[in-house]
Amino acid sequence: MSDQALHADTLIHPDWIVPVVPQGVVLDGYSLAITGDRISALLPRAQTGAIEADTVLELPGQVLLPGLINSHGHAGMSLLRGYADDKPLMPWLEEFIWPAEGAHVSEAFVADGTELAIAEMIRAGTTTFSDMYFFPDIAARTAQTAGMRCQITFPVFDFPTAWAKNADEYISKGLAVRDDFKHSTLVRVVFGPHAPYTVSAENLAKVATLAAELDVEIHIHLHETAGEVLQAVEQNGERPLDSLHRLGLIGPRTQCVHMTDLGDQDIALLAGAGAHVVHCPQSNMKLASGVCPVSKLMDKGINVALGTDSAASNNNLNLFIEMQAAALLAKVSSMDATRLAASDALAMATINGARAMGIADQLGSLETGKLADVIAVDLSGPELQPVYNPLSQLVYACNGSQVSHSWVAGRAVMQNRELTTIDIDAVRERSENWRNRIEEGRP
Amino acid sequence: MSDQALHADTLIHPDWIVPVVPQGVVLDGYSLAITGDRISALLPRAQTGAIEADTVLELPGQVLLPGLINSHGHAGMSLLRGYADDKPLMPWLEEFIWPAEGAHVSEAFVADGTELAIAEMIRAGTTTFSDMYFFPDIAARTAQTAGMRCQITFPVFDFPTAWAKNADEYISKGLAVRDDFKHSTLVRVVFGPHAPYTVSAENLAKVATLAAELDVEIHIHLHETAGEVLQAVEQNGERPLDSLHRLGLIGPRTQCVHMTDLGDQDIALLAGAGAHVVHCPQSNMKLASGVCPVSKLMDKGINVALGTDSAASNNNLNLFIEMQAAALLAKVSSMDATRLAASDALAMATINGARAMGIADQLGSLETGKLADVIAVDLSGPELQPVYNPLSQLVYACNGSQVSHSWVAGRAVMQNRELTTIDIDAVRERSENWRNRIEEGRP
Repeated sequence: MSDQALHADTLIHPDWIVPVVPQGVVLDGYSLAITGDRISALLPRAQTGAIEADTVLELPGQVLLPGLINSHGHAGMSLLRGYADDKPLMPWLEEFIWPAEGAHVSEAFVADGTELAIAEMIRAGTTTFSDMYFFPDIAARTAQTAGMRCQITFPVFDFPTAWAKNADEYISKGLAVRDDFKHSTLVRVVFGPHAPYTVSAENLAKVATLAAELDVEIHIHLHETAGEVLQAVEQNGERPLDSLHRLGLIGPRTQCVHMTDLGDQDIALLAGAGAHVVHCPQSNMKLASGVCPVSKLMDKGINVALGTDSAASNNNLNLFIEMQAAALLAKVSSMDATRLAASDALAMATINGARAMGIADQLGSLETGKLADVIAVDLSGPELQPVYNPLSQLVYACNGSQVSHSWVAGRAVMQNRELTTIDIDAVRERSENWRNRIEEGRP
Repeated sequence: MSDQALHADTLIHPDWIVPVVPQGVVLDGYSLAITGDRISALLPRAQTGAIEADTVLELPGQVLLPGLINSHGHAGMSLLRGYADDKPLMPWLEEFIWPAEGAHVSEAFVADGTELAIAEMIRAGTTTFSDMYFFPDIAARTAQTAGMRCQITFPVFDFPTAWAKNADEYISKGLAVRDDFKHSTLVRVVFGPHAPYTVSAENLAKVATLAAELDVEIHIHLHETAGEVLQAVEQNGERPLDSLHRLGLIGPRTQCVHMTDLGDQDIALLAGAGAHVVHCPQSNMKLASGVCPVSKLMDKGINVALGTDSAASNNNLNLFIEMQAAALLAKVSSMDATRLAASDALAMATINGARAMGIADQLGSLETGKLADVIAVDLSGPELQPVYNPLSQLVYACNGSQVSHSWVAGRAVMQNRELTTIDIDAVRERSENWRNRIEEGRP
């Protein structure tokens, strides 16, 4: 802070600030100022006298932290939440999800499902989400309208769906969406080839070439189950990760989602390539897909982000519960209670997501000059008493319902748990209409 | 329903009722009446005309279900929530928890910690909890005052603590507490020998004899880690379960808590004896203790109940999140997504707990004549839309914050999320005072 007066749109006085960078730090008695879309100051409350703020917010008993980053999901699928449970991955997809999608997915479905997902995510502290679904232009527009930050990964498949008829069309339409949103400060559009088993080597190579040329991220489902890996080895004589690497698809702009089946050679390859892993523990558990060895990945310096996957396989988009699940699963699966400590889990759900998306210089921590994507969490409820360490409460005791305020790029998208950009009653009504139509067509 | 008019204290019209018995059923358009401490009617709304009710409650968008039963915990330890994280079981106990307890546990600590725990539990849908802690008389009185149902398991150790000096004194004081509460309709007092490694064979045999004579339940930590079992085998030449069985401690009144290390011979023994298992998935994961093989237990017909363990090792007392964790962990640990379906997880957190406590004829499901321990859960939030099946939403999408009302023995202990028997501000203030004192003495 210089001695000069600073103008701020909003000056917030919480009890604590968890900036995430540096990791593990809890600032007691600090304040945060937002000017425009940026964090303009982070300083001891006693030093805020020189700040002239339009709005001053006192948040006793609350903690400020960076908005959470949901690094993998399919927002439109929220309309299929609970449509089919307790099934393994492939029957769940082939007998329930894909037929329902085939019958119903449309621009309206994606708009309504995405808005529902955004409403849920904001209420549980997410301010940035990654999305892979049909009609990515609609998802992008819905997020933009809601004031929500997102990485839209446009899908690429070999086969036709409601959105495109072949890989070339997915790519050309996707790049057109990227072009449409190139000036958006909220929406980034990147490549989302679905998986090695749904996109041919030839088409994956095209994606690799274009992504390298344009310097754009690639987001792909990979090694979700041991069965997927086994089948690929039988068909192609190599593991999917090796195939993708050979095709030039594995590098520092690649986000590999799921990764439950990983041997030491896979981990060495990922580390060498500087690729990112997106861990989706609850979806992997619910579908009995397996467990991503996050402790081993972290030991090798691989960046691991956190995602909920869709509400159809989770069945919520709540990153607080996902952080808890990630920490607990890492401990029990490695039989080491010291693994994935609270601060590691919080990093996964914030700065690591920003790193995977290539925007960690702008996002993922509370630092002066970074984008003002900030949430406030109320730790005053009995379920969070007493507070020895706010970081521990955030990861091990919060359930997301304690998020009180949320700002994206400095704009308040939730105030005292009221959404400012979404009409929840309308969202609920449209969701009910979709349920009725989808239930009528249930096979 | 006869044609005669029925007087009810409360008549509730939700959208759905999940009675738990029969398992998997969702009643659409049914109503529930409470008269005194009992459920006096459960019938289609169209047939409620003959019921004269003092209070009629319309709960659109909500589901009624039995209050949840938390079958294992240490309520007083809520004051140590987040005091020490990311440690394995024995260092966590020996370096942090036991020293803090040694310095601070007193009647006031137990009263304040138990009230904090009850406030948290009611807000997340629990209406009955099992407790094992020092000063069980204080815990019992605190629950009675709060109108909360509980099974108080008085502790037995070989060594002195703040409450008693040796096993005989623990037992005699415990039985005196049992006598004090013998007319209570809310509080049941049973034996709580801590664990095979803290109570000698001689004292365990005493407990077995007395429990058989008095026909009282026994609640014991057992096979929490593989290390515990290995150490016992090295010291005694047999597995702890075998030792307890030889001492007459394993039978249909026995609640075996944790049970992560179980071979086929252990499972056969439990099944043959008709003993109950209390599964604490989140605590077992957080302390990296292991995974209780609940699917195998259920296949052998063993009754499995659900517990949170204490807020010091969880770090919440939220059975909604615990149900979710139990279901997801069962699926991934058996690599079978069909295991522990939503209705199984809900049974674990309700009727199975009542079975373990020997009171399933009175509790654990919504049936006419049973005790009116009932909760209402609001499914109208965006995180629960759309509702294909309320049962799926309860287990896979709720986080506990949606519980709107709670009745214990017909008395409303929470209405529209406001606790009626506990002053939350006072609880918070006392919790903060304890934190300050405990932090001052931190080693």
